[in-house]
Amino acid sequence: MRRLNGDSADFESALAALEVPMDSDDGDVRSTVADIIADIERRGEPALLEYTRRFDQLDVDAICELEVSREELERALSELPGEQRDALSEAAKRIETFHRKQLSDDWSYDDGLGNRLGQRLTPLRRVGVYVPGGKASYPSSVLMNAIPARVAGVSEIIMVAPTPGGYRNPLVLAAAALAGVHRMFCVGGAQAVAALALGTTAIPRVDKIVGPGNRFVAEAKRQVFGRVGIDMIAGPSEILIIADGSAAPEWMAMDLFSQAEHDESAQALLLCPDAAYIEAVDAAVERLLPQMERSAIIRASLDKRGALIQTRDIAHAAAISNALAPEHLELAVADPEALLPLIDAAGAIFMGIHSCEALGDYCAGPNHVLPTSGSARFFSPLGVYDFQKRSSIIHCSAQGAVPLARVAQVLAEGESLTAHARSAAMRIVD
Amino acid sequence: MRRLNGDSADFESALAALEVPMDSDDGDVRSTVADIIADIERRGEPALLEYTRRFDQLDVDAICELEVSREELERALSELPGEQRDALSEAAKRIETFHRKQLSDDWSYDDGLGNRLGQRLTPLRRVGVYVPGGKASYPSSVLMNAIPARVAGVSEIIMVAPTPGGYRNPLVLAAAALAGVHRMFCVGGAQAVAALALGTTAIPRVDKIVGPGNRFVAEAKRQVFGRVGIDMIAGPSEILIIADGSAAPEWMAMDLFSQAEHDESAQALLLCPDAAYIEAVDAAVERLLPQMERSAIIRASLDKRGALIQTRDIAHAAAISNALAPEHLELAVADPEALLPLIDAAGAIFMGIHSCEALGDYCAGPNHVLPTSGSARFFSPLGVYDFQKRSSIIHCSAQGAVPLARVAQVLAEGESLTAHARSAAMRIVD
Repeated sequence: MRRLNGDSADFESALAALEVPMDSDDGDVRSTVADIIADIERRGEPALLEYTRRFDQLDVDAICELEVSREELERALSELPGEQRDALSEAAKRIETFHRKQLSDDWSYDDGLGNRLGQRLTPLRRVGVYVPGGKASYPSSVLMNAIPARVAGVSEIIMVAPTPGGYRNPLVLAAAALAGVHRMFCVGGAQAVAALALGTTAIPRVDKIVGPGNRFVAEAKRQVFGRVGIDMIAGPSEILIIADGSAAPEWMAMDLFSQAEHDESAQALLLCPDAAYIEAVDAAVERLLPQMERSAIIRASLDKRGALIQTRDIAHAAAISNALAPEHLELAVADPEALLPLIDAAGAIFMGIHSCEALGDYCAGPNHVLPTSGSARFFSPLGVYDFQKRSSIIHCSAQGAVPLARVAQVLAEGESLTAHARSAAMRIVD
Repeated sequence: MRRLNGDSADFESALAALEVPMDSDDGDVRSTVADIIADIERRGEPALLEYTRRFDQLDVDAICELEVSREELERALSELPGEQRDALSEAAKRIETFHRKQLSDDWSYDDGLGNRLGQRLTPLRRVGVYVPGGKASYPSSVLMNAIPARVAGVSEIIMVAPTPGGYRNPLVLAAAALAGVHRMFCVGGAQAVAALALGTTAIPRVDKIVGPGNRFVAEAKRQVFGRVGIDMIAGPSEILIIADGSAAPEWMAMDLFSQAEHDESAQALLLCPDAAYIEAVDAAVERLLPQMERSAIIRASLDKRGALIQTRDIAHAAAISNALAPEHLELAVADPEALLPLIDAAGAIFMGIHSCEALGDYCAGPNHVLPTSGSARFFSPLGVYDFQKRSSIIHCSAQGAVPLARVAQVLAEGESLTAHARSAAMRIVD
């Protein structure tokens, strides 16, 4: 694997060369998606049917024929091999347990003047979950996107997934049943995102759209943002491992592979102060890579974006990690608790050598929908809070309103908003 | 004012005719802004200087000359007339008190297998606060945008505000001092948003940009979203009042004006089941309107987008309000607590006749940055949570990892991600 030294003069530029530009900087994708959205807005269901025919080779007369019944979802679950059904159920249970901890309560307080101020939380009414078709169609994604919505109390969870040629992935259907998806339609692409954002005859308009997708889907989500909520703008997945040599080098190699196998654009980095250990990890990478089913993808990803980085010490590794704000951060060190205070931004932090990313990807409980491309600087993991909205509550009493009105009047006059000032002043009553 | 009846056959279309399209559906604005952002990205500070010269008539050699020192901010505060300084301080204090209630703690739990799972909150490191110049330059906005960032613990709050011709609004500077702004630059427009998102020689790159602005600023925020966080896509401001006749009609008229005076595109609606009371409010509107300083704007707004709507009953009014998801909702009724459970989506809810919007706009405590154009369906008021990021924590013990690894292995194999499966399986140790 590529080796970098965190102290060399060209380190920053060498690291920057491993970054990828954000997907939707592509003007062609942008205009194609804009056209599709405009077409769905203008023509509705006939346009959706046409795109589905063209992109998914599905020729139906009405979108309602592409709705998957709740019975079909349940049947897929019951027909799953026992081992898979048990694993999926266990994962769903653990994901639900974690996300229930994210529920919070309404609150209010009296300001001492007789006014009550507070905040109220209510679930979104209807959300759309996008599930990719084809090679990146993952039942675990269905669980991770739909369960927080259900825990939040969303009344209607609508899932869309393209089914090119009509093939319906039974694991995805089973996961939908387990996660509590209310309705599912076999449509996909930018056209499905547009249908969810705008509503069509068969597909109701939603309040928010979540879930991963290709760059057309990602760009469509970006373009409908504001009309509906979206989860985040996702780029290629990344792992950054800070290692002190506590783990077997083979563990580190396989953890790097588990990121790299997603996609040639995925990024796997390992940071360590110990040159000999880096050598050992590199040797393990070369030894294990030929055995991997997805070795071509892994090799391409590691060549393009991977690196083993020698740092001055562990604190230096933490500083580099903070600048990158990785999606997944493994602290593969003997004392992860001591290292944690040095960590600022990361989507998910895997503490210690037994906490490999794969456990978090599937079943530990926390969400695997995480901010990518450095956006952990400002985005958070998908959570129950993404499926709730807050309202401020302002309840002034007749007496309590008076001192507030005096302050508001002065400030409104300072801003030349005299109707504001008079509206406040009217509440100054004896 | 325009009268509508909530039961008439054409009600929905009449109400829809009062909506405005989202700002950035304008292709010219979109491409102008894209060009400005690309130019700042390519040329950095020289481009920023050029735009500032062109749009703000400020001819300086370097952007650092446009930085306002902390001393100048403090001086503006101390030189303010006593009444204004006291009012601004009182507002700042109340806003801080409210937002402190939004702070929440890290949490974690043991899953019973020896694994610890949790969530960690950390402040964003650096945020940008955009403050408009000219007629919409409001010190209250400075408080509402910067105080939650300070409460969250953001290390560096960078404020930008255009100062056309070099005029620095002392109220805005004073508010910046009070709110705890760390650095301020006199730049504005899409170019200032781009500078904050990308960083230039003088202006450091931020993690998130908040604050209101014209449609170029709003579109710039939309375009940089993903590279940095943004607060929300804001449209024209709105009020919806549900009234049962408990308040003097003049109060209702003035509350409608206080929204309408913002802008010709602002919207003011009153819903009430009582025809006679609607008549009385309308008469009060006609009687008071000629006295208002901003009567031309108010008249234009009411003509274009305002309405008095007769409903079957209060529950019917609540249903219409829920469909609109208003930014500001006044429950001007005798028993607002009884009505609240019927309310779903609204940015801020003003309970009872003494709780007029103006009190919330300035000093009640809750934020006045609220979701507009129906986006209260999925957006929340600006809050401390907007200036924090969450990280998931996954800490598996050697024994605790084993059952998780078994589940992950089955699911990863089901998704043909065999490196994931092997990475998990390696943690199955005795």
